[in-house]
Amino acid sequence: MNKQIGIIGGDLRIIKLIEILENEGFEVYTYGLENNKFLNSNIVKCNTITELNINCNYIISGMPFSKDGIHIYAPFSNKKVVINDLLQIIENKTLIAGAIKLEIKQNAKKNNITIIDLMDIEELAVLNTIPTVEGAIQIAMQETEITIHNSNCLVLGFGRIGKLLTNALRNLGAHVYCMARKESDLAWIKTYGYNAIHINELEKSLNNKYDIIFNTIPALILDEAKLELIKNKSIIIELASNPGGIDFEKAKQYNIKVVKALGLPGKAAPYTSAKYIKQILDKVIF
Amino acid sequence: MNKQIGIIGGDLRIIKLIEILENEGFEVYTYGLENNKFLNSNIVKCNTITELNINCNYIISGMPFSKDGIHIYAPFSNKKVVINDLLQIIENKTLIAGAIKLEIKQNAKKNNITIIDLMDIEELAVLNTIPTVEGAIQIAMQETEITIHNSNCLVLGFGRIGKLLTNALRNLGAHVYCMARKESDLAWIKTYGYNAIHINELEKSLNNKYDIIFNTIPALILDEAKLELIKNKSIIIELASNPGGIDFEKAKQYNIKVVKALGLPGKAAPYTSAKYIKQILDKVIF
Amino acid sequence: MNKQIGIIGGDLRIIKLIEILENEGFEVYTYGLENNKFLNSNIVKCNTITELNINCNYIISGMPFSKDGIHIYAPFSNKKVVINDLLQIIENKTLIAGAIKLEIKQNAKKNNITIIDLMDIEELAVLNTIPTVEGAIQIAMQETEITIHNSNCLVLGFGRIGKLLTNALRNLGAHVYCMARKESDLAWIKTYGYNAIHINELEKSLNNKYDIIFNTIPALILDEAKLELIKNKSIIIELASNPGGIDFEKAKQYNIKVVKALGLPGKAAPYTSAKYIKQILDKVIF
Amino acid sequence: MNKQIGIIGGDLRIIKLIEILENEGFEVYTYGLENNKFLNSNIVKCNTITELNINCNYIISGMPFSKDGIHIYAPFSNKKVVINDLLQIIENKTLIAGAIKLEIKQNAKKNNITIIDLMDIEELAVLNTIPTVEGAIQIAMQETEITIHNSNCLVLGFGRIGKLLTNALRNLGAHVYCMARKESDLAWIKTYGYNAIHINELEKSLNNKYDIIFNTIPALILDEAKLELIKNKSIIIELASNPGGIDFEKAKQYNIKVVKALGLPGKAAPYTSAKYIKQILDKVIF
Repeated sequence: MNKQIGIIGGDLRIIKLIEILENEGFEVYTYGLENNKFLNSNIVKCNTITELNINCNYIISGMPFSKDGIHIYAPFSNKKVVINDLLQIIENKTLIAGAIKLEIKQNAKKNNITIIDLMDIEELAVLNTIPTVEGAIQIAMQETEITIHNSNCLVLGFGRIGKLLTNALRNLGAHVYCMARKESDLAWIKTYGYNAIHINELEKSLNNKYDIIFNTIPALILDEAKLELIKNKSIIIELASNPGGIDFEKAKQYNIKVVKALGLPGKAAPYTSAKYIKQILDKVIF
Repeated sequence: MNKQIGIIGGDLRIIKLIEILENEGFEVYTYGLENNKFLNSNIVKCNTITELNINCNYIISGMPFSKDGIHIYAPFSNKKVVINDLLQIIENKTLIAGAIKLEIKQNAKKNNITIIDLMDIEELAVLNTIPTVEGAIQIAMQETEITIHNSNCLVLGFGRIGKLLTNALRNLGAHVYCMARKESDLAWIKTYGYNAIHINELEKSLNNKYDIIFNTIPALILDEAKLELIKNKSIIIELASNPGGIDFEKAKQYNIKVVKALGLPGKAAPYTSAKYIKQILDKVIF
Repeated sequence: MNKQIGIIGGDLRIIKLIEILENEGFEVYTYGLENNKFLNSNIVKCNTITELNINCNYIISGMPFSKDGIHIYAPFSNKKVVINDLLQIIENKTLIAGAIKLEIKQNAKKNNITIIDLMDIEELAVLNTIPTVEGAIQIAMQETEITIHNSNCLVLGFGRIGKLLTNALRNLGAHVYCMARKESDLAWIKTYGYNAIHINELEKSLNNKYDIIFNTIPALILDEAKLELIKNKSIIIELASNPGGIDFEKAKQYNIKVVKALGLPGKAAPYTSAKYIKQILDKVIF
Repeated sequence: MNKQIGIIGGDLRIIKLIEILENEGFEVYTYGLENNKFLNSNIVKCNTITELNINCNYIISGMPFSKDGIHIYAPFSNKKVVINDLLQIIENKTLIAGAIKLEIKQNAKKNNITIIDLMDIEELAVLNTIPTVEGAIQIAMQETEITIHNSNCLVLGFGRIGKLLTNALRNLGAHVYCMARKESDLAWIKTYGYNAIHINELEKSLNNKYDIIFNTIPALILDEAKLELIKNKSIIIELASNPGGIDFEKAKQYNIKVVKALGLPGKAAPYTSAKYIKQILDKVIF
């Protein structure tokens, strides 16, 4: 078993992951995390990536790996790590990160780097629905002056997040409505005891009914015609990645509060999210 | 809208379906149901299939359509209706039944019969998990001298039935364990809060632990090596279709009670099951 | 610790209790159980109560202790044990049984017998709601041709059984209505997410609405005026002790199925019920 | 029906109550709310209490009615209303407020004022557990870096809040432990499927086990000896009114985060809380 791990960049989940790795006896070498206050003193802070690379066969970076496509994502650092430079240094090693672009994957291959993209691992995607749903509920609690109990909640979409979110809302006493397109999804929605709304009947169903609307569909669902029917005091929580499912400009005009809630696992429960990553690492590399 | 419906053969669900159709104003023509006591007097009992065929464009038969591949399934009748004869008579009509063999479908096509196989409709399969799960729970209650509350329940498989059954058992206060093979299924099992058991760890997990075991997998899972580890007072409820997942002979030797529970929707809740069929008919033909 | 236990009479729960006591290393002396087939050979079958009394300081009898007030309740025996005779023999000992009449308690005191009436122990009463509720649900499943899922269920009363039954029904997907008299109970009913019905609005609410009605109130609630409003296909499950809450004669006239379900813990889950008794014994005498 | 309502002082719940009253057609006269930004223009802002008193027979004030025992509680006002002065003005009227001290009630009686103390109404106390529990869960979500799902949660006390909080935590996937003193409460805790901890076994149970601890008992439970056993990363949420159940000073020394969470209904869900008050008013005065 390999007990040296390199960490380059990454956000709060990475900090929590380092905590877990240290507790389990790993030697952690870091670069690009110098501004965070959480790290304890046993961690090796490397001055260069080369120094880190000498000590580690496995190198973990952020989720996402990069925001601009050129540098790695390193919010706790002032250093700008150029991806192509990094790939030159860490040849023959294993790089673990999230949402790595195809082009980068191909470049990595040329340097004989083994790439593990955490976003490609379905198990992790499933587990991440847990903090996503709790984060969504936390937002709903913070941003409304009503209880979830006895409220009318609409969930748009019955994918991973929709499945767990409807369950949590019902368990908190909400009246749960869920919109889907496929007949078999609608049958599941009924089977679990929620109110099923076919996408063609969404407009008809909106009329001043819902207190909280959660969107999980990454395609325009709540357009002007539909926003017009949503009651003024409603709140919409956007869980789908950009461009999402809501016409933000129009929502503003209709005075409907929209809260964009992305990256919830890292925000709502960074430690739990880090534990999930550790579970995956245990299976994939350790 | 077509208000004449023909019914040929079928079991208790068909009787309940007739009740529902009548209440909604359909004229129902029947054949092959003469022995049941439930039918009220407004129904037309035809003396021949030809008589029925003259009056109806839509003809509903049993689920399954046939048990022996030659005659239709008609437990409430002494008549033996040969499928090939039936297909000659009802040419150009629509035939709705369940689990129709490919060969029969091809023959029907020659007579220009439109076939709707209810078993091919995923929506119905999803809805049928509801009475299946309630039936399974009813059996567990009847066949044990313990409560489901606080019992250790193992569900083998996390398909349609597994998903809903684990949910129901947990809701009744059981300690729920669920075995699956795929990592993403195991992640879902954890996500819903059940104990996840990888198929490779099933044997290790069995040791005298479970009070009630439900099998939903149509492949041999509980072989002799595993049955040996199951505690004597356990009960196994077999929900998978033949040959199922249990070595019945060995189970007998080890003195473990096995209950075969097939066709539960029609047995546990014939009226609800008939309503589901009616919902499908509403979409497909009416 | 006292390891000799005497058992005189009692029903299936007592048989299961003996099984548990034996497994835990107690020496069990029995009388008045000679007709049951369950007992294994290690148990001492006494020929007289005196023989049993010589060996045991703690004597357990049935729940109820007596049905006629004169003899003990001993359904697995042909012998008629007169209570007053018994009390003469077991003087200075401890007698544990259920629903012991005040007069008997007073007589026992004269013989310096310590009486433990299991029915007076609230903890046991609470635990017994579990098999009672599962038994009620099992009956509802057996006696209807619908699923509990999506059915309209009315629970009359929000005492111990009402609290747990509403919870179980909702968890199985029913639409749950609960009737109570006190405002604070109605507030709790809403708080748990059920539909609250004030007793004064029961009549108005009945109109052909409920599929399954559970009564837990030992006072006439469903009189003729109310039965008239219950839909024909409804089933009423009577969980309250005699005389219960239903006018049985009128129900018959209105063709409404009523199922009397008493003594459910011993019937639905005798082993679990015996375990609860054992838990109480562990605290009270062992 | 009386359509003029006077409002003097009070917090955010009172503002929301005014909103509801206005929507239902009441004429609302206010005093002591001049600093809040929420009130729309139809409301009559009185310059004196006398002006308000002339127009209204029912006068609603805050919950609590007073914080210092001398002035009314009016956080949205710069005015200092002396309670005894108020009672002089509103003689013969009905005063509705919360947690009114006995002495004030007696003084009111002298002026023939009918007092309705909302804190004495059990129905409202029950309903208020809903926003209290949601508020407690919101805090747990905000203040931890883990999910409630799969966390070990301990609830101290099984009164109103304990009952609903355990339910909500379990529904969100926590492992729920609940401490109580009475055997019958412990039986209920088991009956609902939580882990029951007798108060005498609390200390033994604490050892580094719990992630989140909720206290509902207004008596010192978590003293130094117990705090020593709580794991460093735990958070304690104090829901009991002062002095509460935690030794705050010692908790600080042991580096355990304690969050005091009082008045949650008004903070977490002021609109829902106002609706509950309105429901009570509907029964009591309208």
